[in-house]
Amino acid sequence: MTTTTIAKGLEGVLFTETKLTFIDGTAGVLEHLGIPIQQWAEKSTFEELSFALLHARLPKADELAQFDAALKANRAVPAELVSLIEAFPKGVHPMQALRTAVSHLGLFDADAENITEEGRYALSVRLIAQFSTIIAAIARTQEGQPVVAPRADLTHAGNFLYMLTGKEPTEEQARLFDIALVLHVDHGMNASTFTAIATASTLSDMYSAITSAVGSLKGPLHGGANEAVMDMLDEIGTVDKAEAYITEKLDRKEKIMGVGHRVYKYFDPRSRVLRDYAAHVAEKEGKSDYYAILETIERVIVERLSSKGIYPNVDFYSGTVYSDLGIKKEFFTPIFALARISGWCASVNEYTLNNRILRPDAVYTGAREAAYVEIQDR
Amino acid sequence: MTTTTIAKGLEGVLFTETKLTFIDGTAGVLEHLGIPIQQWAEKSTFEELSFALLHARLPKADELAQFDAALKANRAVPAELVSLIEAFPKGVHPMQALRTAVSHLGLFDADAENITEEGRYALSVRLIAQFSTIIAAIARTQEGQPVVAPRADLTHAGNFLYMLTGKEPTEEQARLFDIALVLHVDHGMNASTFTAIATASTLSDMYSAITSAVGSLKGPLHGGANEAVMDMLDEIGTVDKAEAYITEKLDRKEKIMGVGHRVYKYFDPRSRVLRDYAAHVAEKEGKSDYYAILETIERVIVERLSSKGIYPNVDFYSGTVYSDLGIKKEFFTPIFALARISGWCASVNEYTLNNRILRPDAVYTGAREAAYVEIQDR
Repeated sequence: MTTTTIAKGLEGVLFTETKLTFIDGTAGVLEHLGIPIQQWAEKSTFEELSFALLHARLPKADELAQFDAALKANRAVPAELVSLIEAFPKGVHPMQALRTAVSHLGLFDADAENITEEGRYALSVRLIAQFSTIIAAIARTQEGQPVVAPRADLTHAGNFLYMLTGKEPTEEQARLFDIALVLHVDHGMNASTFTAIATASTLSDMYSAITSAVGSLKGPLHGGANEAVMDMLDEIGTVDKAEAYITEKLDRKEKIMGVGHRVYKYFDPRSRVLRDYAAHVAEKEGKSDYYAILETIERVIVERLSSKGIYPNVDFYSGTVYSDLGIKKEFFTPIFALARISGWCASVNEYTLNNRILRPDAVYTGAREAAYVEIQDR
Repeated sequence: MTTTTIAKGLEGVLFTETKLTFIDGTAGVLEHLGIPIQQWAEKSTFEELSFALLHARLPKADELAQFDAALKANRAVPAELVSLIEAFPKGVHPMQALRTAVSHLGLFDADAENITEEGRYALSVRLIAQFSTIIAAIARTQEGQPVVAPRADLTHAGNFLYMLTGKEPTEEQARLFDIALVLHVDHGMNASTFTAIATASTLSDMYSAITSAVGSLKGPLHGGANEAVMDMLDEIGTVDKAEAYITEKLDRKEKIMGVGHRVYKYFDPRSRVLRDYAAHVAEKEGKSDYYAILETIERVIVERLSSKGIYPNVDFYSGTVYSDLGIKKEFFTPIFALARISGWCASVNEYTLNNRILRPDAVYTGAREAAYVEIQDR
């Protein structure tokens, strides 16, 4: 197919088929395997959704048990990798650390070059399991705390919180974090998933694909948004200043983080799940400052922008949830990666089964048929 | 823009403008800034072409001298990085090593997060200079040889050969390698350049973009082709077996490495430059076995396939040239990266000046509006 107009950002360009995720941004619909995200959040787990995307179907009970056991068995990372993470220079960007650590993990893996369907699947399971351990190790090291080894008796979400904090989370905390992971596992051809596919499309290996995806997610236009929302909440400080702050921003037509989405022109369905949860907690335990500020901002945004299809998005709420779980905002993007790794792997596996190297074109607007001018004549 | 058909591999899809590289595959034309690749190869250097792409113009004499001095001043890498490379597990894929090393280099760079125009430019100069040192260090380590520190009195090409072999190359060797680099510096929106752009399009940093590009180039559909050509030459062994080997392959309609190109439907202009050079050497010093085999294969390919627009490509000849320079075939792809780093950086810098996050779409072909089935009911 040759087009004559430029598809900026490749928006609206269809480049492959997928059976994994359906999004209707106008209606506010997100489905995995046809099942609405609300049902996944309510009834499923990170482990089950990961299996479902990797296999393009729901697991039977014994299959899920086997998958869960495989994830648990693969949680440990080589001791050399932990030492390397501990030796990372102080104060590095956590996503630079994650990008480097996952790339380095590939050097320890004798199967790293296996790009058969079975090979990619086995590496996916390993990467999903080990990502959790790596991210927790980076966070602990940056906090000056000793790295905590994984436990095999906890869920994926619960074990991560345990490795992160050194304390076993409550069942409610683990479940809440599990829901947050489920909401972020996959989201169609977002930039990091697309970058993973672009890398794998040369028939490169899984570590290369996932390393690329981490680097892409790192950018503030993609994974950094919920950290930016928390920066805004911290800047506002107290609820009494929220309305004036946001009204001024809107009057000055400044960008407000966590508001609007390239895909959604209605409420992002993931944001509804987190909002309902936050409201539930607020009702039970009283409103946190963050929640009270968010509530005010949300009201103003919906009043003034919903007619333009602009609503608060998932990043608007997720930061508050993570913060309630004791996760520092510098680690919000790695936690996004912790969830999205399953979507990355499933998407790479699906694409490479019917692979075509990605090589678009650009419109050349420079000189033509010029001659090299000798340097003394320039 | 919304299309209704799938653009497989994004072939023919225009996603941005560029002033860097023009390709007309049907006519066999490759130009940088409008100047044909043959003139760059004949008259210019890796350093000058790198400047030209980064600035979208030819340098004046003093500008080129300053640029060259900046590259030389930036050749050294942190001692910690050399130690890390020396500690890489034995036998790792050189491109996995390069991907990891460049990602790790970012952790030592206090300016890594600078994504301003000036910041990206400064990092480009540093990365172009340091890539050479990293690749040589990986190659030396894998050979069990001590790492050789860079010298500031040699050209970029000459210094690389010196670091690789521990011996100062002859002027002719350095110039030949320089030509090979010039031929590979940029080639439009190839997969690795596109992957670098996809990563940077989230406003991620230069190290992330280049790490992604390395991972993409690593794939056998992209950077691995000239290594595969050498495998084929080794398999053929002697010139008397070449014609029968290639005829059989063609009769069986098997893929022949180094033949045909997605873009070129005529002789790849880069392949002509290398072919002429190889012929010149053969005339002067007698035909090497490799050259004699290539000559036979080329004749058969042109006889049988040129009517279909299929010709030997640049990978068909570059391996022989590298091999003559004493470079092992396992390092052909890192050497491709050594050249292409300038194209990657220039393309990322050009794109991010007029940035749009890359987010194409996929056609969803799975189930819709399904319900989550409880696990006992599956």
